[in-house]
Amino acid sequence: MIYFNNDYSEGCHEAILDALTRTNLVQTPGYGEDAYCARAAEKIRKLCGREDLAVHFLVGGTQANLTVIDAALRPHQGALCAVTGHINGHETGAVEATGHKVLALPGKDGKISAEQVRSYVLAHRADSSFEHMVQPKLVYISSPSELGTLYSLAELEALSQVCRELGLYLFLDGARLGYGLAARDNDVTLADLARLCDVFYIGGTKVGALFGEAVVIANPALAEDFRYLIKQHGGMLAKGRLLGIQFDTLMSDNLYFSIGARAVALADQIRATLDELQVPYLVPGSTNQIFPIFPDALLEELAKEFVFCEQERVDDTHRAVRFCTSWATTQENVDRLCQALKELVKKQ
Amino acid sequence: MIYFNNDYSEGCHEAILDALTRTNLVQTPGYGEDAYCARAAEKIRKLCGREDLAVHFLVGGTQANLTVIDAALRPHQGALCAVTGHINGHETGAVEATGHKVLALPGKDGKISAEQVRSYVLAHRADSSFEHMVQPKLVYISSPSELGTLYSLAELEALSQVCRELGLYLFLDGARLGYGLAARDNDVTLADLARLCDVFYIGGTKVGALFGEAVVIANPALAEDFRYLIKQHGGMLAKGRLLGIQFDTLMSDNLYFSIGARAVALADQIRATLDELQVPYLVPGSTNQIFPIFPDALLEELAKEFVFCEQERVDDTHRAVRFCTSWATTQENVDRLCQALKELVKKQ
Amino acid sequence: MIYFNNDYSEGCHEAILDALTRTNLVQTPGYGEDAYCARAAEKIRKLCGREDLAVHFLVGGTQANLTVIDAALRPHQGALCAVTGHINGHETGAVEATGHKVLALPGKDGKISAEQVRSYVLAHRADSSFEHMVQPKLVYISSPSELGTLYSLAELEALSQVCRELGLYLFLDGARLGYGLAARDNDVTLADLARLCDVFYIGGTKVGALFGEAVVIANPALAEDFRYLIKQHGGMLAKGRLLGIQFDTLMSDNLYFSIGARAVALADQIRATLDELQVPYLVPGSTNQIFPIFPDALLEELAKEFVFCEQERVDDTHRAVRFCTSWATTQENVDRLCQALKELVKKQ
Amino acid sequence: MIYFNNDYSEGCHEAILDALTRTNLVQTPGYGEDAYCARAAEKIRKLCGREDLAVHFLVGGTQANLTVIDAALRPHQGALCAVTGHINGHETGAVEATGHKVLALPGKDGKISAEQVRSYVLAHRADSSFEHMVQPKLVYISSPSELGTLYSLAELEALSQVCRELGLYLFLDGARLGYGLAARDNDVTLADLARLCDVFYIGGTKVGALFGEAVVIANPALAEDFRYLIKQHGGMLAKGRLLGIQFDTLMSDNLYFSIGARAVALADQIRATLDELQVPYLVPGSTNQIFPIFPDALLEELAKEFVFCEQERVDDTHRAVRFCTSWATTQENVDRLCQALKELVKKQ
Repeated sequence: MIYFNNDYSEGCHEAILDALTRTNLVQTPGYGEDAYCARAAEKIRKLCGREDLAVHFLVGGTQANLTVIDAALRPHQGALCAVTGHINGHETGAVEATGHKVLALPGKDGKISAEQVRSYVLAHRADSSFEHMVQPKLVYISSPSELGTLYSLAELEALSQVCRELGLYLFLDGARLGYGLAARDNDVTLADLARLCDVFYIGGTKVGALFGEAVVIANPALAEDFRYLIKQHGGMLAKGRLLGIQFDTLMSDNLYFSIGARAVALADQIRATLDELQVPYLVPGSTNQIFPIFPDALLEELAKEFVFCEQERVDDTHRAVRFCTSWATTQENVDRLCQALKELVKKQ
Repeated sequence: MIYFNNDYSEGCHEAILDALTRTNLVQTPGYGEDAYCARAAEKIRKLCGREDLAVHFLVGGTQANLTVIDAALRPHQGALCAVTGHINGHETGAVEATGHKVLALPGKDGKISAEQVRSYVLAHRADSSFEHMVQPKLVYISSPSELGTLYSLAELEALSQVCRELGLYLFLDGARLGYGLAARDNDVTLADLARLCDVFYIGGTKVGALFGEAVVIANPALAEDFRYLIKQHGGMLAKGRLLGIQFDTLMSDNLYFSIGARAVALADQIRATLDELQVPYLVPGSTNQIFPIFPDALLEELAKEFVFCEQERVDDTHRAVRFCTSWATTQENVDRLCQALKELVKKQ
Repeated sequence: MIYFNNDYSEGCHEAILDALTRTNLVQTPGYGEDAYCARAAEKIRKLCGREDLAVHFLVGGTQANLTVIDAALRPHQGALCAVTGHINGHETGAVEATGHKVLALPGKDGKISAEQVRSYVLAHRADSSFEHMVQPKLVYISSPSELGTLYSLAELEALSQVCRELGLYLFLDGARLGYGLAARDNDVTLADLARLCDVFYIGGTKVGALFGEAVVIANPALAEDFRYLIKQHGGMLAKGRLLGIQFDTLMSDNLYFSIGARAVALADQIRATLDELQVPYLVPGSTNQIFPIFPDALLEELAKEFVFCEQERVDDTHRAVRFCTSWATTQENVDRLCQALKELVKKQ
Repeated sequence: MIYFNNDYSEGCHEAILDALTRTNLVQTPGYGEDAYCARAAEKIRKLCGREDLAVHFLVGGTQANLTVIDAALRPHQGALCAVTGHINGHETGAVEATGHKVLALPGKDGKISAEQVRSYVLAHRADSSFEHMVQPKLVYISSPSELGTLYSLAELEALSQVCRELGLYLFLDGARLGYGLAARDNDVTLADLARLCDVFYIGGTKVGALFGEAVVIANPALAEDFRYLIKQHGGMLAKGRLLGIQFDTLMSDNLYFSIGARAVALADQIRATLDELQVPYLVPGSTNQIFPIFPDALLEELAKEFVFCEQERVDDTHRAVRFCTSWATTQENVDRLCQALKELVKKQ
């Protein structure tokens, strides 16, 4: 079987394995206070073009989301996000477990707009019984989103502006950021994120690391005492160096970006084939995730050789599925998938 | 500098690094549902002599503690533990953050007794306003404890009996279990733990792994829906295999036990030197942690070559410190420490 | 100004004031362990036709909702409810503050159906990554609902059956139950509620009491240690007798039911006038709440003499508003409202 | 039987019952936004000599404690208090249920000192692994304390100063404040409390009200959005006027102070008798609570006519008990108690 179902089916990029091996017996302080973490953080600050950023390394995406949101909010405040947002539907209520309501807005292709945020917040404030409702205080977005779409620079600027105007925090989940930065139609840089978001993270788990996300905090109000919160939520590794070594490697020699570029190029090849075959998509996209719609019968055939992810039923005889490429995807497997798609579509 | 300050200063045992390298490009399902996790769990069940145990792999000790306790307790219930217990003083209120009070009992050398538990629970139940107090429902112990001491089989049997009699859960934190099982005066086996505890964990982070603890649940009431709780607390790795591969390795070829035995043998050598020099201890011990008491002046000299951990001030001119050995400690460094101790004590 | 905006604008029914005065200097035990509470609970058990019910008196609706739900759920579990449900939108995230997600379903006139519950739960269980989502475990309904609609006996039986079949709890918020039981088209009794729900409450605050709700627990699994939870959430009054005295009074001489009947009769009179004037409704209804739709201009006039509650904008020139009757509404004020409505509609 | 066991055995002062009766049919807005609450708050501000205080009325003491502490703290922060503090041992973990650890300090007669606070906080900050421990951020004290003792003005000034110097909040639980203000050796005024504390409350439940505590917030940082927190914790009464009417009454015509003075005078009479009989005390005191130590045999006799509260066993044959006077205590009953004590002590 050939796996296209997700971007976390293998271990890690070999450069990371090398670095772990090379440093294995070096003795360091624990809990992220080692030189590797310091160096990785410094490289991230440089890439973001700002020396005043706080950078913390967390174990995974859910951990990053719940720790950041818990650090940011007072008890009566909630996080606005698209109904498809990861924190809303795919983290077993991790945010609610810290006491905060997720305020879900209807999304478009996995995204929400500045205008939606403004309307929601103004309506809250205008309501005569506003104190009976959760106060919106943070906007959570993902880019690439759970549906593989990207926020444009203009969209992020509008969101950032409305958040600042209304006193909300803007938090960007970048679990797949590497694949977004490399997309053909991306016009956003790390420096833009550091300028426009109060906090965001650079995903490692899905972009070549064994595990780990680099949380970048631009707003000092959110940075205060952040390590206490990491510890409290069980996210502080005794051997914090593991995250430092991984991100130090990813942020060296353009590795993070070249991993993204390669995976997106392979996804583009699959998209080109689908376009050629006039296969429709559930949502448009340009990153490492592709959501084509196929007849059930074709998927049954395809499943004999490939593993993919079920997304949703579209009608009685069609389903949308997800293909992912990643740092580990081989050219050979992509060629084989494209070939198989061509044969199966023709057979219909 | 030579580090004896803790047991998490290096990466991991080379057998684990080899296994991670060997399996790196194998594709597996995510979130701990891979064959490595299954195999590691199976080996642990076998070592415990029971096929009905639930085994889950968690990222670290705080994560394991908070997830187990949150899974076990209803909102009004609390966890009894020694005042020195890790959950009481060294996890930034992680248990309280899940809503539960830690009910601290005065400990003796880091341990609490069955009799203390019984008295506390009976006093609670006899109080006419018991509903105004947190209900004790779980007993948390560590073995080795935070002070390096061990529960004997008799002590564990007494605790287990009182817990069953009174309807409490017994939870053993085994962050350093490998060093406990190998201690000269240990009379407890994994099978004993599985028989006497409702839940316990086998520590990996401090015993040769990069990170990870294997939670073993013997009481089915605690096992129900446990994976939901892992996910909710941000402890479910996308690449759960990382934990499976590590514990599969540790549980093969007696590796976990030989790591423990070697570290304890080196610690015994240090203890023998201290005994010879008639250095007093803060607490007695037989595992990989040693808590000798030295004059401040001697420690000032020692600190020029060795890194150790400050434990507590004993009197105006003496402090207790901690030396740890581990899977990574070298014979050479132990010899050098013993030599230095001899010289410094003589010089006094 | 004449107030029709809600059912909690005045103090309490005079019988309750008399009872509080009469008993004022009687000495009793605190915290709800007095004879008045015992007697009120006994009367409620009798009215429900079951001796095995646990009855607890809580301060208010939000307190009752959060305490019951917190008592019922494990950390990873959530409460299904209509999107209009009080816990979803009007309690400042009180349920989330106890760690639990509210799982909002699209409602019809403020209600959800057995079929919706079944579909949601079965879809959850069928999802391959169900552990990444909050587990539905409790169904929260209000009857009368926030929109003044009622669950019929058939609807409740269907909900109860699906909950039992799927292992969920059914919880009915009866903040306005007295007005529901008295409605023309109601076919449900207290005995039905005790038979079909795992837990429900009989609202006092809006039905003649100064404050207080009587929580009736039919499922022993939810009753265990319930008083600990009341105390923990700050809902246990030192002078718990205040609630006992009030419910003892309400449950005597048919008072609770006659309060409901009188308020509903007055609401029926308003509905008859609206029907005669062919005023449309936002939702149909038969209890003490009425949601007519009027032109903005008419409402502007009406607001000069009457206070009512804004419900929602219907179109550019029309709004739905809410009129409430209650135990304290006078015949005179209802006559005046009907007269005013007739004049204003004619003037249009 | 004559009850001296607590100060909440009866209903309320008759002036309050009169006010509730007189206002019963007046229509007001709900949720504490009525004129009675405004007037009561205004009177409290005047008594405290400051116009900038936020005043909120809560249902009871546990509710006030948990709401204030939850409003004040970030997730990793805890509340310092005496081991005997009400939040530590008598509120079923209500503070922990909001996620915060109670950091108990050994108290002296129910009190903690500025020096203890300073040492604890400085030790925390000096610890190299401070992020692994709960950050002390709020000091909770009760005056009168749970043992009936009072903080002197000098003690409060020292606590206030250390809190401001170290960036902590000072919170005073005044559940029995009325009895403290009236004590012979009290040198503190409401104005002092408003000046020295960040937040405190004036207890109503035990000082003549049916129920209710007036929370006075002097630090604007704690006042922000406080009503959201009241609502979230289920503490916002629909008929918030009930609290306004009660505190408006208590704060009029010196009522609160004269209630306190009368109860303390009666307690002083009992103390004079005990002194005359040379009965020892568990703790000294001057408020409405008295903690004498008696032989078991005497208490057995006394219990035939009087209800008192068990405090603790002192030795094999002696126990400390508690007598309380209150707004409702009669001169006749106090005379009878003094008489009985004299007879029983003589008989020994």
